Amino acid sequence: MSQINSSLPSIDRLVEAFQRLPGIGPKSAQRLTYHLIKMKREESAELASAALGIKDNLTTCEICFNISEKSQCSICSDNERNSQIICVVEEPLNVLAIERSKIFKGLYHVLYGVISPVDAIGPDNLKISELTQRIKNNEIKEIIIATNPTLRGEATASYIRDMVLELDKSVEISRLARGLPSGSDIEYVDDSTLVHALNSRSSLK
Amino acid sequence: MSQINSSLPSIDRLVEAFQRLPGIGPKSAQRLTYHLIKMKREESAELASAALGIKDNLTTCEICFNISEKSQCSICSDNERNSQIICVVEEPLNVLAIERSKIFKGLYHVLYGVISPVDAIGPDNLKISELTQRIKNNEIKEIIIATNPTLRGEATASYIRDMVLELDKSVEISRLARGLPSGSDIEYVDDSTLVHALNSRSSLK
Repeated sequence: MSQINSSLPSIDRLVEAFQRLPGIGPKSAQRLTYHLIKMKREESAELASAALGIKDNLTTCEICFNISEKSQCSICSDNERNSQIICVVEEPLNVLAIERSKIFKGLYHVLYGVISPVDAIGPDNLKISELTQRIKNNEIKEIIIATNPTLRGEATASYIRDMVLELDKSVEISRLARGLPSGSDIEYVDDSTLVHALNSRSSLK
Repeated sequence: MSQINSSLPSIDRLVEAFQRLPGIGPKSAQRLTYHLIKMKREESAELASAALGIKDNLTTCEICFNISEKSQCSICSDNERNSQIICVVEEPLNVLAIERSKIFKGLYHVLYGVISPVDAIGPDNLKISELTQRIKNNEIKEIIIATNPTLRGEATASYIRDMVLELDKSVEISRLARGLPSGSDIEYVDDSTLVHALNSRSSLK
């Protein structure tokens, strides 16, 4: 970390606060800080107040654990959504991404991470038992496991699959398709993606 | 700008506040916001309070216009610095950069921008007349013009040079050297830099 020393405590303090955010290094933190100095008072006050408000106004949905302003999130309390399909994701941001696609009309379940023995994160640290309860207590037709296509995401998906099978209820279990991303160039696609794209090739006939 | 819509006003509000900062696009703003949700309350409160403090505690130095907590900045009020040399820079961040090099022991003068007719910024919008006054009223031996090596930076440097010459005082005027940046690869250096590196080549004899 490069040294920050403007000899002004109030500047150093904001630079340090910005540096604690993900993806912001010493230089960016400094640039952001000096930008804030030049901003209008209302604008910097708005940032500060929005940063405080995020803690005061938010909770997690008691059903799917997505971030919400009420005890039940707007998706879980929407009667027009299909409550028999649950899409299981790692993080709240993944819900946003899938919602943006506008193609999924079921409900979600947010795990808050993946199983990772190295980081001492086991199934008990995730919202997996809560998912089991949801499947037991509700009429669920399909579980779409949408963890990331990474080693840990796959391991977590496979753990959840086994757990759902054990419940011995007639629930479909699916996983998001793997293959070439839109707009990609086969020359630059990694081997693992190509293997999946070949294995899951679809007939054109 | 990609659409942001988490359907949660407190999230959208912080995402928008982050997006107003330089170099932060919709995706980064979203990632920062969700990081803040996961942060401890003290940490997000610290960011908010530091962002507010930056406005409450700062002013500009009455001599050099650098950002300061007192009416005179720590550099201008340091008796060990050479008050006969003034380094003219575009922005307060440039002062930090030059201070980091630890090689300059004179004072600064912050212009707050460069002359840019397209953006309707003329000499009167910058701290140029204040610089003239400083040179008139003090015993100054050298003015180092350290505006950026860009078209506008050069134009501003040349304007300041003419202005200092008009004062008809025996003041040295210099400009930061241009050439190859340390660690660069000549193959990838732009033509303009190479022209300067060749023209200002130094003898090895």
